[in-house]
Amino acid sequence: MTEPPTPRATVKRYHWLAKYDEETIHAILDAMPMCSVGYVHDGKPVVTPTLQWRDGNRIFWHGSSASRMLRAVDTQDVCVCVSIIDGLVLARSAYNYNLNHRSVMVFGTAQKVTDDAEKRHQLEHFVNRVVPGQWDRLRPVSDKELKATTLMSLALTEASAKVRTGPPEDDEDDYEFPVWAGVVPVDFRIAAPIPDPRNLPGVEMPDDVLKFRLG
Amino acid sequence: MTEPPTPRATVKRYHWLAKYDEETIHAILDAMPMCSVGYVHDGKPVVTPTLQWRDGNRIFWHGSSASRMLRAVDTQDVCVCVSIIDGLVLARSAYNYNLNHRSVMVFGTAQKVTDDAEKRHQLEHFVNRVVPGQWDRLRPVSDKELKATTLMSLALTEASAKVRTGPPEDDEDDYEFPVWAGVVPVDFRIAAPIPDPRNLPGVEMPDDVLKFRLG
Repeated sequence: MTEPPTPRATVKRYHWLAKYDEETIHAILDAMPMCSVGYVHDGKPVVTPTLQWRDGNRIFWHGSSASRMLRAVDTQDVCVCVSIIDGLVLARSAYNYNLNHRSVMVFGTAQKVTDDAEKRHQLEHFVNRVVPGQWDRLRPVSDKELKATTLMSLALTEASAKVRTGPPEDDEDDYEFPVWAGVVPVDFRIAAPIPDPRNLPGVEMPDDVLKFRLG
Repeated sequence: MTEPPTPRATVKRYHWLAKYDEETIHAILDAMPMCSVGYVHDGKPVVTPTLQWRDGNRIFWHGSSASRMLRAVDTQDVCVCVSIIDGLVLARSAYNYNLNHRSVMVFGTAQKVTDDAEKRHQLEHFVNRVVPGQWDRLRPVSDKELKATTLMSLALTEASAKVRTGPPEDDEDDYEFPVWAGVVPVDFRIAAPIPDPRNLPGVEMPDDVLKFRLG
């Protein structure tokens, strides 16, 4: 990984910064479950989108035990990447176009979690992160389902974040060029929940569903 | 890549479908410029977030000629992945939790575009896709900038899409379990543009900026 720019260069020239502090990395991972898991399969790169969640200094992702990705990454090197778009940065030159964004890259060796209690604990943690308290409302997980689920884990030992915020950064001469520049902010809109038409009569939506956030 | 499920299985059991039709793949790529480029570097997987755009049956991405990723992928195998979250699918069991989403995976050999006219044409195409007509408003690209920009290209020959829509799909027995199920829809909200404080007096925002869309 490249070194982060010096603080002076960062402030003066770039509103982004390669960040290695835990707090920034954790916040980005917690804000966006969707991730890309990169691995090597038969010598070729594969990137699979999946969902990650964090517990302490590790991230986890899961899937069917039949998943090609999950079978391929156990004890193998992976690179997991999370990205959030925060805005389009319209500069005065195409060269200085940019995105405001937050991203995290994690490198390391993925490991399968084989202990059933730990698997169950992590799935509960994941479900409750998305909608607080939801785990206990669900039809309980069966042993068969637990067995059919593969859970992978990756330490956040080799992780870095990139964050870019703020207005365009044009070449100094370009500030005299008569074109509008600015930022178009972007975020996620969470719409009103749509009840399943097959919900039982009298079953009400828990208020906690409205706590779901993204980004 | 795995075969798509049969139409019957798709309709009955899954609201998602592995799609190979060009129209679906193109629409997803056009809706989301942010992508993850996976490649192998020193035998290890690396995933780099960047921006892609499509022209016909190819996608393109660019960056500084000093970029490690761009130097590493020329004439090498890559996997480029685009993902869009459309909703959280709250099923009656943790096992059937899901995301409504659209994603595309493209496999192939990345190739550097070396012709200056083609580079310029593609950068113009990219800028105008984001905000129509913006290329001609910008300070023109210099030869030096063009030289400092590496443009990569990848054919959409080996590409597939996955799309999941609709309500939860629970195990048949679980529909009797008294828990609320449904979908929380998610999309991108484009906020009001923020003018750069250094904009020249009298410079107005082109209406085309309001045409920027994501997802």
